[in-house]
Amino acid sequence: MERIPILQMGKCLLVTIQVDLQDRVAMQLQEDLSSTVEKTGATGVLIDISALEIVDSFIGRMLASISGITSVLDATTVVVGMQPAVAITLVELGLSLEGVRTALNVERGMALLRLRDGEGSDDTNA
Amino acid sequence: MERIPILQMGKCLLVTIQVDLQDRVAMQLQEDLSSTVEKTGATGVLIDISALEIVDSFIGRMLASISGITSVLDATTVVVGMQPAVAITLVELGLSLEGVRTALNVERGMALLRLRDGEGSDDTNA
Repeated sequence: MERIPILQMGKCLLVTIQVDLQDRVAMQLQEDLSSTVEKTGATGVLIDISALEIVDSFIGRMLASISGITSVLDATTVVVGMQPAVAITLVELGLSLEGVRTALNVERGMALLRLRDGEGSDDTNA
Repeated sequence: MERIPILQMGKCLLVTIQVDLQDRVAMQLQEDLSSTVEKTGATGVLIDISALEIVDSFIGRMLASISGITSVLDATTVVVGMQPAVAITLVELGLSLEGVRTALNVERGMALLRLRDGEGSDDTNA
């Protein structure tokens, strides 16, 4: 009955994934995250996966799903801290983490969120 | 062979404890934290224990020890997110977490660290 804690820092939520994500833990995390985004009005979610040595298609789908859910709730999800070996495996497996933003580490992820927060949308740089 | 990830945010390190702390994991965390403080020049360490439902004397000693080590390295450790039930049990057991600073949550812990950073020492308010 584990539950992954969600830390709030300003308008940003931080989740560190340290344990193997079983179905139930992953579902719980999705629920907790969406209700926390709703409760706090957070505009950004950082998911740190630096402790994960394996990111399989299940975790990939979960990250994409969380990203989609928070996006509907008007919050941007950034996955940070991916180990180089994990990135290599992902590409080799053909998993592209579609729709999931990534950043090197928490600091860069926060900078990315601040940028989007400040400028509304950084996609329109015309 | 678990390892608790240490996240850097500015001059602050953040550790979220989610798993039961075995001796080896705890020792590893102490080593990792002290070397990261040395490497990054961090002045504050936040340890989030919101996922812990039990804080026994072993964890209490570990927190005190981490606090002591980082203090020698010129970084302040703040333990955040303690569950109310844990606080009750600690007091009932007569464990006082001596030398360990606590704060309600990550945000307040960060504010405490910023205060100490900005003012040098907030103990001398004369």
